[in-house]
Amino acid sequence: MDVAELSRGLDTIWVVLTAAMILLMEGGFALLEAGFVRQKNAVSIIMKVFVDIVFGALVFYFFGFAIMYGKDVGGLFGSSGFMLNGDLSHINLNISHETYWLFQCAFVIAVISIVSGAVAERIHFRAYILLTIAMTGLIYPLSGHWVWAVNGWLGKLGMIDFAGSAAIHALGGFAALAATLFIGPRIGKFSPDGKVNIVSPSNLPLASVGAFILWFGWFGFNAGSTLSATNAAIGHIAITTMLSAASGGAICILFTMFRYRKADPPMVINGSLAGLVGITAGCAFVSDGAAIWIGSICGIAMVLVTEYMERKQIDDPVGAFAVHGISGSIGTLAVGLCAIPELTTGVGNGYYGLLYGGGWHLLGAQALGLVVIAIWGFGLTWAVLWLIRKAMPVRVSKDEELVGLDVGIHGVPAYSQENDFIDVDHITRKP
Amino acid sequence: MDVAELSRGLDTIWVVLTAAMILLMEGGFALLEAGFVRQKNAVSIIMKVFVDIVFGALVFYFFGFAIMYGKDVGGLFGSSGFMLNGDLSHINLNISHETYWLFQCAFVIAVISIVSGAVAERIHFRAYILLTIAMTGLIYPLSGHWVWAVNGWLGKLGMIDFAGSAAIHALGGFAALAATLFIGPRIGKFSPDGKVNIVSPSNLPLASVGAFILWFGWFGFNAGSTLSATNAAIGHIAITTMLSAASGGAICILFTMFRYRKADPPMVINGSLAGLVGITAGCAFVSDGAAIWIGSICGIAMVLVTEYMERKQIDDPVGAFAVHGISGSIGTLAVGLCAIPELTTGVGNGYYGLLYGGGWHLLGAQALGLVVIAIWGFGLTWAVLWLIRKAMPVRVSKDEELVGLDVGIHGVPAYSQENDFIDVDHITRKP
Amino acid sequence: MDVAELSRGLDTIWVVLTAAMILLMEGGFALLEAGFVRQKNAVSIIMKVFVDIVFGALVFYFFGFAIMYGKDVGGLFGSSGFMLNGDLSHINLNISHETYWLFQCAFVIAVISIVSGAVAERIHFRAYILLTIAMTGLIYPLSGHWVWAVNGWLGKLGMIDFAGSAAIHALGGFAALAATLFIGPRIGKFSPDGKVNIVSPSNLPLASVGAFILWFGWFGFNAGSTLSATNAAIGHIAITTMLSAASGGAICILFTMFRYRKADPPMVINGSLAGLVGITAGCAFVSDGAAIWIGSICGIAMVLVTEYMERKQIDDPVGAFAVHGISGSIGTLAVGLCAIPELTTGVGNGYYGLLYGGGWHLLGAQALGLVVIAIWGFGLTWAVLWLIRKAMPVRVSKDEELVGLDVGIHGVPAYSQENDFIDVDHITRKP
Repeated sequence: MDVAELSRGLDTIWVVLTAAMILLMEGGFALLEAGFVRQKNAVSIIMKVFVDIVFGALVFYFFGFAIMYGKDVGGLFGSSGFMLNGDLSHINLNISHETYWLFQCAFVIAVISIVSGAVAERIHFRAYILLTIAMTGLIYPLSGHWVWAVNGWLGKLGMIDFAGSAAIHALGGFAALAATLFIGPRIGKFSPDGKVNIVSPSNLPLASVGAFILWFGWFGFNAGSTLSATNAAIGHIAITTMLSAASGGAICILFTMFRYRKADPPMVINGSLAGLVGITAGCAFVSDGAAIWIGSICGIAMVLVTEYMERKQIDDPVGAFAVHGISGSIGTLAVGLCAIPELTTGVGNGYYGLLYGGGWHLLGAQALGLVVIAIWGFGLTWAVLWLIRKAMPVRVSKDEELVGLDVGIHGVPAYSQENDFIDVDHITRKP
Repeated sequence: MDVAELSRGLDTIWVVLTAAMILLMEGGFALLEAGFVRQKNAVSIIMKVFVDIVFGALVFYFFGFAIMYGKDVGGLFGSSGFMLNGDLSHINLNISHETYWLFQCAFVIAVISIVSGAVAERIHFRAYILLTIAMTGLIYPLSGHWVWAVNGWLGKLGMIDFAGSAAIHALGGFAALAATLFIGPRIGKFSPDGKVNIVSPSNLPLASVGAFILWFGWFGFNAGSTLSATNAAIGHIAITTMLSAASGGAICILFTMFRYRKADPPMVINGSLAGLVGITAGCAFVSDGAAIWIGSICGIAMVLVTEYMERKQIDDPVGAFAVHGISGSIGTLAVGLCAIPELTTGVGNGYYGLLYGGGWHLLGAQALGLVVIAIWGFGLTWAVLWLIRKAMPVRVSKDEELVGLDVGIHGVPAYSQENDFIDVDHITRKP
Repeated sequence: MDVAELSRGLDTIWVVLTAAMILLMEGGFALLEAGFVRQKNAVSIIMKVFVDIVFGALVFYFFGFAIMYGKDVGGLFGSSGFMLNGDLSHINLNISHETYWLFQCAFVIAVISIVSGAVAERIHFRAYILLTIAMTGLIYPLSGHWVWAVNGWLGKLGMIDFAGSAAIHALGGFAALAATLFIGPRIGKFSPDGKVNIVSPSNLPLASVGAFILWFGWFGFNAGSTLSATNAAIGHIAITTMLSAASGGAICILFTMFRYRKADPPMVINGSLAGLVGITAGCAFVSDGAAIWIGSICGIAMVLVTEYMERKQIDDPVGAFAVHGISGSIGTLAVGLCAIPELTTGVGNGYYGLLYGGGWHLLGAQALGLVVIAIWGFGLTWAVLWLIRKAMPVRVSKDEELVGLDVGIHGVPAYSQENDFIDVDHITRKP
């Protein structure tokens, strides 16, 4: 046993444990989304989370990883590492490529899970599988390459995004926006006269616990992104993550008490998540105080954008765009403003924030990267859905939507109070 | 890479991971409490857990940490470290102050979460926010300083409390008792003729899973309190934690089968938690056999005290005092009896238990510390609630209590079987 | 601080953290099973999971561990280490015996939890406690000794089973089969004319999240089984675990879409678990590609065996045998086919798979071990239940079964929508 071997072991367990924490976030997404949607669609949204994790992992193994982290071609895409074969010598880490893959796999699954919420209660299951394959095999790996891969063009221009406010959350958020616009609002959400109708979330305790699980996983997401247990930034990352999440939640409690005269549970849940999304880019680069500001701004922006989208008749059932798209954007830009010189030398690229006298370069790179990713996520998602619609329905039938996707598509309700066996067909639930 | 750097990295990830586990306990508290209360109050109790974590973290960052772990003044309070600034050189650890803060932050949130259960179903939300601020910014930091800070007066007298049976759980438990007495029983819990009425917990599966999540987090709570991954006590701490929890649960299964003729699910859930609370002070100091005794005694005591409180018409909806106050007290005293000489040299202070010939000093210190903390937790909580009542109602109105705090205070039910959108006001739920 | 001490600390936290993850799987089992059974039995199945963990831990501490890992007698059983006392010098690890015990304790609890699902909704609570004691104190420790202990006879013959497809899952699965056959089907599951009746799972969102928690814990289960953080196999174990689980879930989505015309949620949930069970033996020994094959085969086999058992009127409410028994068997045999030479030198015994030119020895040893364990698990479970029936009813009364075990045995329903206190007896729920 020598120091090098110990160091490698230490980094390996750090990355494996944090990857497992991120994968547990799928349980968090499942609870959050199942709790927020109507009871008749609670299982269908969880089945989509299963699609995210099972197809996402396989597609990323066969294709996505190679395109994202394979040998760079022109700063645009990777070209080796399909099934982890081929030359990956440019990935020069203290952990094995397999360990690295697991961590990155957990990331890609998070991206598509963001989209799943926006299309809840109406997307067709088969179409969703195809969208998942496109997102985890192509859309995210390409833009991810630009930001994070060795020689990716956005990274070379100076963009920094520690754990993915842009590469993960803004991408997922703008993809979610495209998908919800493409597929249209749920039947009954908006009256013909323009009135916005509501329905209570089916299970807020589940949704809340989903948020706590996501919060737990986020420590893996952000601190694990060091990929090294001896990275001196870990403690700082953990505290900024905590403070931003707390600020996002606290501001939403206060803001909704002021605005609605009642602390609004779904907004508080999403406010904490907005704080987490917002700090994801800058967790290693900004001060504790900036983290509190970022979380607070993201929380308020999330409430206002959620309201704005309702007014504009854009139907995003769980607030995926308001949480991930908006907070991801704010967090990405905040790095350009608030990145501290001494925090961007070890884990960053040396550029730092406008407010610390770093000039416009970093802010410009962040803004450019954000615009590129937003357009890419929105445009490709729209294009993929357009292509899918050539082959099959993207949206369930009106009857299926009204009866609910659980029984309509999956042949089983989410909750049942039946206590006696009944003589019905297993699938159709008809005698 | 050298050994010192490795050691620092190792300790850092140990503390960050265990802190994340403790923070996940908030999800456990949320499930446990939401499952135990009535359906009409399930979201309101979860919103209180959100208050715990979001306001708790911010207040502890701005004030609490400094008062608890800042530069000591007379053994009574700390005076530096507000926002982690100022001289903290007396905290001489192998981990950064930021990492240390995260771990301590997870602790403070646990304290106030104990109280949340006792005031469930009737405290006013705004009053609860103020109580949270007082608890996390003042009450717990002060008594915590006395026990755990360098030069804290109780610690100097010889009191040892490894992970907080007294500093966390007895404090939280006695605060919970004060709060439930101050605020009074729920409407209908006790008939005018003195009869005790009951209601089934709304969701026992949720409550059970809350207990499993708490159990998981407790390994972080107890073993993580070493703050060092190379501390030789970790294995011992883990096994005593496991055995005491198992004993607490097992004895409650057997005891309720004997006493009620039926294994009582809520008692079994709380029995395991009682075992965990009881071993928290002594996990590093007592033998495996003592851990089994401690868990068993805590389990039976929890059942008897729960019954006693009902008879005395003290309404503690989730059993916060019986679980945390009583088991925390038993665990604190048990250290004075059972602490083993060889286990109290490395992580203790050299004093050991009466049963091992250590004399009365340690037991006396434990008893004194317990009494001080119990009075402090009870008294300050009462005083703070008394002050709050000067400014605003501490308890919801009768109408709000009867309709339930979810709809009454937060404008949304916890569970909804509505499957169609309805044209109602977002907040008031009226057309 | 030197390298040896660091190494010991590193291994200790690795094992403690992964053990905690495995123990959290009990929460996963509880959710999975409570969600799959009928509402009237949701708490009773969770109480059985509590029995697993609280009695399992204590029995394994007093007896089981010694019989499994104590000083070997003739390759058949261990004879020291009761309460961790006596000569355990043959256990020569870098972690303490206490840490090792915790990890193994988490394993034994998993075994009995497998059985709990098969006997759900009808076993008597007291009988289940006795079965738990027999399983965790005798049945599993003996066969576990044969496979895993130093000098265990199956291990000496060349059988390898990295984290327990055979020793844990096949054993638990065949025990589950014996138990469900012994105890008979639930009333109403099969009509007198042979018709199979169904009932919807009571809470599929809960069940799904149970699967995600189990998935999370499985990284601890498989990767933690290295017992050393510097084991070079960790990364490989993590990726094969992920790929097999994903394949199991993905194939069940596709297969049920083809076979039933609808992606079937319970089958998808169990398919992922089948993939996890199947890779448990070979996670360290087989290639990524083999992991995908193993997961896929286990997924399809699980669906077909579930259907077959229904046709044969064997009533296994949560599919315990199809998931654990069948996939455990497939995974055990797969090692004999697919173990790669270079992967079986460090963590294996040098024998490798038939497909890689390793000849029939390893496959023979795997097949022999599997047959022995299947017969042992089935036979001993049957014998123990037969003995228990001499002393007390193994099955609840018809009335208790019809009213449900929650109210019938435990005196409280799992879910309650009562919002007002009622004047009833605490236990009987009668006025």
